[in-house]
Amino acid sequence: MQHPLDQATALSPAGEHRFAGYTSPAYANMVGPFGGTTCAVLLNAALLHPERLGDPIALTVNFTSPVADGAFEIDARPLRTNRSTQHWFMQLLQPDGVAATATAVFAQRRSTWSAPEAEPPAGVLPADSVPRASLAGRPPWVRCFDMRFMEGGMPDPFDGQEQPHARSRLWVRDEPPRPLDFVALASLCDSFFPRVFIRRRKFAPIGTVSLTSYFHASAEQLAAQGDRHLLATARALAYRDGYFDQTAEMWSDEGVLLASTHQMVYFRD
Amino acid sequence: MQHPLDQATALSPAGEHRFAGYTSPAYANMVGPFGGTTCAVLLNAALLHPERLGDPIALTVNFTSPVADGAFEIDARPLRTNRSTQHWFMQLLQPDGVAATATAVFAQRRSTWSAPEAEPPAGVLPADSVPRASLAGRPPWVRCFDMRFMEGGMPDPFDGQEQPHARSRLWVRDEPPRPLDFVALASLCDSFFPRVFIRRRKFAPIGTVSLTSYFHASAEQLAAQGDRHLLATARALAYRDGYFDQTAEMWSDEGVLLASTHQMVYFRD
Repeated sequence: MQHPLDQATALSPAGEHRFAGYTSPAYANMVGPFGGTTCAVLLNAALLHPERLGDPIALTVNFTSPVADGAFEIDARPLRTNRSTQHWFMQLLQPDGVAATATAVFAQRRSTWSAPEAEPPAGVLPADSVPRASLAGRPPWVRCFDMRFMEGGMPDPFDGQEQPHARSRLWVRDEPPRPLDFVALASLCDSFFPRVFIRRRKFAPIGTVSLTSYFHASAEQLAAQGDRHLLATARALAYRDGYFDQTAEMWSDEGVLLASTHQMVYFRD
Repeated sequence: MQHPLDQATALSPAGEHRFAGYTSPAYANMVGPFGGTTCAVLLNAALLHPERLGDPIALTVNFTSPVADGAFEIDARPLRTNRSTQHWFMQLLQPDGVAATATAVFAQRRSTWSAPEAEPPAGVLPADSVPRASLAGRPPWVRCFDMRFMEGGMPDPFDGQEQPHARSRLWVRDEPPRPLDFVALASLCDSFFPRVFIRRRKFAPIGTVSLTSYFHASAEQLAAQGDRHLLATARALAYRDGYFDQTAEMWSDEGVLLASTHQMVYFRD
């Protein structure tokens, strides 16, 4: 039985630089599919492309219009291939036009001097000692993740009591569990609840317009994480005139930074 | 007399979705031009495009190969225009192929509930009480900025004494002074010295592969900043197997976040 994420990101060849896919009801959001699967399937097109070199270093996805439920095609082109890096442009196409664009940098990494600089989050409890977040009233995609909040979970209820900040600290993995790889990590990087919901304890119409993820880990490091929970943190810097940002980190359960991810999000009052 | 940044980012129409430009010796770097002017001129193509809607919210530039000194063309296309947002794809083209790609999100912002969340940097001295960083031994582009470091300046000398972190806190503006706008802010977002130089107090061959900037401010807020110094902070999260990240913030001198910016950078030992 195929994992829901593998269903949602499955692509079949549809010509040169072309792949065909289909949105998955398991990852349905308020309008169209969960953005994380859109990121994951765009990345997957480059990963599956016969000319692909190395592993992803950076992925930027711009959400140009709501993805309609149903069929889509992805046009994925390597625009420049160097000795150890490769630059990609992808578009998710539907009859209505382009629904998302993406760029990616792939690279063959080499062993160098390496060092962490950011500290893994403090005050962390074992994942199995933190209760799983409620799914009541949440859109379907939330069921595809096991989230365990130590700080900054979804306000319940939305009581409109504005908070001083919207920082979150949580354990998160795919549900059902699935071994970590770049596709799963690209999806997990968009699995955070909107900062404005947490800050204002108030629902608002929102939509990510641009999301960038940086992959600090090798394929081997992701494989070593297996299907265990990742430790994640998220925060915002500013909310202003219809847009706020989010910056987040995805750590292994042994305190290794696997990805950092940033987004700008549209919101209404 | 035209400001050097306006020279470096000047574009003339060269057909539908096409602009012609020329690299500027004032912003020469070790190999090719300073990446900040590449970001700025790619953004400028969208700003100058007759179909442009609103102001920039997000800009991602991928540096696909060194930009050669001399002429270039920019292909800048709005891929999707919605009611209040517009999505762009740009390519900087030279005879050798594509030297940089970019995506941008533009938007017409509306007044909403707004609030800061990040705090402006602490321990800040007035700009005129901090000496300007030395230009000795620096590539030409460094002369185009007035940088005043309160923390994490360029190591002098490179003594190879590894530091526990590579955080920087500085005042920075164009030199000569120039009123702030989106073009200048896009350039300033790439004006930080490489984190790995500061962390290791050691020179290394480096090159940014992908840079994303988020613009939190309106054109009016940028104009209000005038040509005064911005307050900037930068740090890294991790250095691993040939790549490190940088995350930075650009604040007005009144403590308003104007932009946040992130990049992944290739390095060799």
